[in-house]
Amino acid sequence: MSAAVLSGKELAAGIRADVRERAAVLADRGTPARLAVVTATADEASAWYVRSIASAAGKAGLECDVRDLGADATVERIRAELARLDADSAVHGVILQTPLPAGARAEELARAIGPGKDVDGANPLSLGLLAAGLPAFAPATAEAVVSLLEHHEVPLSGRRAVVVGRSTVVGKPLAHLLLDRNATVTVCHSRTADLAAVVREGEVVVAAVGRAALLTPGHIAAGAFVVDVGTNPTPDGRLVGDVDPAVAEHAGGLSPVPGGVGPVTTALLLRHTVEAAERA
Amino acid sequence: MSAAVLSGKELAAGIRADVRERAAVLADRGTPARLAVVTATADEASAWYVRSIASAAGKAGLECDVRDLGADATVERIRAELARLDADSAVHGVILQTPLPAGARAEELARAIGPGKDVDGANPLSLGLLAAGLPAFAPATAEAVVSLLEHHEVPLSGRRAVVVGRSTVVGKPLAHLLLDRNATVTVCHSRTADLAAVVREGEVVVAAVGRAALLTPGHIAAGAFVVDVGTNPTPDGRLVGDVDPAVAEHAGGLSPVPGGVGPVTTALLLRHTVEAAERA
Repeated sequence: MSAAVLSGKELAAGIRADVRERAAVLADRGTPARLAVVTATADEASAWYVRSIASAAGKAGLECDVRDLGADATVERIRAELARLDADSAVHGVILQTPLPAGARAEELARAIGPGKDVDGANPLSLGLLAAGLPAFAPATAEAVVSLLEHHEVPLSGRRAVVVGRSTVVGKPLAHLLLDRNATVTVCHSRTADLAAVVREGEVVVAAVGRAALLTPGHIAAGAFVVDVGTNPTPDGRLVGDVDPAVAEHAGGLSPVPGGVGPVTTALLLRHTVEAAERA
Repeated sequence: MSAAVLSGKELAAGIRADVRERAAVLADRGTPARLAVVTATADEASAWYVRSIASAAGKAGLECDVRDLGADATVERIRAELARLDADSAVHGVILQTPLPAGARAEELARAIGPGKDVDGANPLSLGLLAAGLPAFAPATAEAVVSLLEHHEVPLSGRRAVVVGRSTVVGKPLAHLLLDRNATVTVCHSRTADLAAVVREGEVVVAAVGRAALLTPGHIAAGAFVVDVGTNPTPDGRLVGDVDPAVAEHAGGLSPVPGGVGPVTTALLLRHTVEAAERA
């Protein structure tokens, strides 16, 4: 028996088609949806990701401005640019790309992005609103995980969900999204004792740590549905996830890397931007 | 063998003593620490709780203003009062008491309390800052649970902690506080399948549901430390917790109700107010 492939391609294509229609309506009105991406790094992977967002935005009929402040940008400079974009009525969504220069904290800087334009849920206020059950944009990656599970009709209510990783951008908001869908949620991390035993409790397992093949077949219960958020570069230039693909031999489902959470994340960023533009 | 009593009285007395000293310094300077409590309910239990806070504040040398807006106060009236208090430089801490009139949401209204005066961590921004590891006041009850465990030297790092209840005021912020202390955290709720089996995984268990004796001896692993946040009134006028006291027969420790989390919560509210006043 082999696990179902929890592909994100079909779901992402559906979201993009919806976004294209809505973006066309906005463009026809003379108020095109506009996403601004602020970067302050020379990191290659970041540059690749920003290009992929800009390309996806263009194909979907959104405007996308990349503001590269350079790897030596100060915290004040970055905050001022975010505040400027937040005040610009022609801009509907603002993303602060990581990594940032030493001394800059993304969670702190993202406070300059108002919740209405915070399309990647980076402002702590967005996270708090989400946790309180009030309207807010969730971080796109966390939302992509839940959307992918729902697209593949994996039941969540009353199920044991185990999230491996407690980051502010994925693990923590994901825990809230899963709780909201009535899963019983466990959050594991680097200090968890006997990680394999805890993860084996999961009927749904999400790996969001950033360590290649951290989860092996011994971590996964038979029939469990596994979503792999990791994107770890290999020496030979490929991307691999946090989950050893061998878990597919007994899991109920496994999302591929690439082609799982990634395309859904990008599509959701665009959808958030169009939603923000529609409300503007 | 009988469980250790995780009393909150000694810890609360220590916090109050510290608060008294700091409040005296502020009063000597002519800038007494001042807490404002906004209520809009005829609820008896709420009135009792507000009186107990005001009394504790008075004994510790803090000023405490209770603003009773009446059970028919509108959302606009409550929000305006919170905004007024937030802007009043003589006020250092603001609490919005629940229950509220029908149609009013505490999480939404508490956005009017800036994080610097949000001494009960009710503003979603405070919760988001907490989750992001940035400075903010935690909800006093959630912080009291962790303080009580630390006071009784219950180890948290690497331990399995199970939180029963997913409220915005206790369960969710508590999950973040426990994660921050490197516990592996599971959050259960009314839709959890086989609650007893999940709770038995806990080396530390926190009950914050508001249902008398929800957790019975069958829910608790031998040697587990149990903190009872529940305060449920009985027909004969007593208060009982969410945990059946019979669990003490095999638990490692159990906090009493009353006399456990409650006094620590009140003491922490006062400490937060003094901290806010010292920064003002």
